[in-house]
Amino acid sequence: MKPLILVTNDDGMFAPGIKALVEVARELGEVVVVAPNSPQSGQGHAITLTEPIRLNEVDVFDDIVAYECSGTPVDCVKLAKHVVLKDRNVDLCVSGINHGSNASINIIYSGTMSAAMEASIEGIKSIGFSYLDYSFEADFEGAKHYARKIMKYALDNQFGDSKLLNVNIPVLPKEEIKGIKICRQAEGTWREEFVESKDPRGQKYYWLTGSFGVETQEPDTDIWALDNGYVSVVPSGHDLTFHSAIDPLKDMESFVNSPNGHL
Amino acid sequence: MKPLILVTNDDGMFAPGIKALVEVARELGEVVVVAPNSPQSGQGHAITLTEPIRLNEVDVFDDIVAYECSGTPVDCVKLAKHVVLKDRNVDLCVSGINHGSNASINIIYSGTMSAAMEASIEGIKSIGFSYLDYSFEADFEGAKHYARKIMKYALDNQFGDSKLLNVNIPVLPKEEIKGIKICRQAEGTWREEFVESKDPRGQKYYWLTGSFGVETQEPDTDIWALDNGYVSVVPSGHDLTFHSAIDPLKDMESFVNSPNGHL
Repeated sequence: MKPLILVTNDDGMFAPGIKALVEVARELGEVVVVAPNSPQSGQGHAITLTEPIRLNEVDVFDDIVAYECSGTPVDCVKLAKHVVLKDRNVDLCVSGINHGSNASINIIYSGTMSAAMEASIEGIKSIGFSYLDYSFEADFEGAKHYARKIMKYALDNQFGDSKLLNVNIPVLPKEEIKGIKICRQAEGTWREEFVESKDPRGQKYYWLTGSFGVETQEPDTDIWALDNGYVSVVPSGHDLTFHSAIDPLKDMESFVNSPNGHL
Repeated sequence: MKPLILVTNDDGMFAPGIKALVEVARELGEVVVVAPNSPQSGQGHAITLTEPIRLNEVDVFDDIVAYECSGTPVDCVKLAKHVVLKDRNVDLCVSGINHGSNASINIIYSGTMSAAMEASIEGIKSIGFSYLDYSFEADFEGAKHYARKIMKYALDNQFGDSKLLNVNIPVLPKEEIKGIKICRQAEGTWREEFVESKDPRGQKYYWLTGSFGVETQEPDTDIWALDNGYVSVVPSGHDLTFHSAIDPLKDMESFVNSPNGHL
């Protein structure tokens, strides 16, 4: 029996990146697409709680069952699992191919990665793919080549105890990419500013802009891998505990729990 | 000089929880509030990229500088740092007090915690507070007592190498709470379903609902602490790498990088 592959993204149903991912996925299994009906970049792990969500079957990809959803990328995965594919076992969820990097801390803001993470929380092996070219005219050949090989591996193997991979692909011709590199998330920061301006009615507004930077370039990080011509693959999870800070904070426990507290 | 404390939340400027937090914060330092102008529960780490954001000074809390923001909780923190408090050193950011739990994996979906996390990414010591009572008539006395002691400690001490605490407070009278407990994020899952119905025009919609559950009850987790009458304090970060899966995945590196690849 062919494996069942759920495809989603955050750039919406008409982005070239999801078309590229569907083309690869259909070579490897039965494909069902549930994706947002509008671009959802920067949605992070947002879910829709205070309003209803619409779900409509659409004919976008030849012979592929596809639904557009009015919610966030995470909503798409929840609806896919609980409504569209209810009672079916999903073998793999793939999200993307995102137009732009989700390496380093960008995983936190990314709708693409949050959709993939949601599937992994539900116990589904899951991969988010991002290509470092923002252009909708981007050439996806190299990205498709590596997505195919990684998905092929993922269908037959576990990711250790992880259920989630964050895959980023550098903007290089396929033959110049040096291969994949398993790595960790680099520490990075956005150097941000807000453009301040006035709308046609004279009311002030702010618009977020900024550039991404990393302080250090350690060779076991995703940023190093991308800067050096590799596809970065970061096994990821959803445990945000800062484990090494638990012991030092026992001191706070004593401070707060003391009946002779300082306040 | 009094410490500078930034207060934000995800329930909006008129939620009782932020009022309680402002009341505590003003005892400890100079307070500036930047909070959403509408409820933003479940917004996760969403940021506003495709539209302008409004920021207006409002007179909500006596003598306290406060701004309402049209964006997400994370937008609020970014605007606070880069516009409202530009060039000033923020000593502590506190987010909440949220109406409802952000323990276990709820940290991932939470606007309250994402706002606090954003501040920590910017290098600001930061704490998200959540009270397990959803009611807007909730009694915040116990929550305020512990928020005060934890903030007092935080102003004078580091959290190990972490910059972020996820604090959840059980629904108990102040004198029945046993104290705080430093712990790790419990593994948990939402058992979800979608209510399916039709709108007045006869169009189908879905509305997310569900209940939260944990599989195991290990005594070093936040869920155990809350179930046993403690305030849970989880030092947190933003590294989503699943470190122990890096070695097992070297096998994928060999598979994909082999020139005799299987595809």
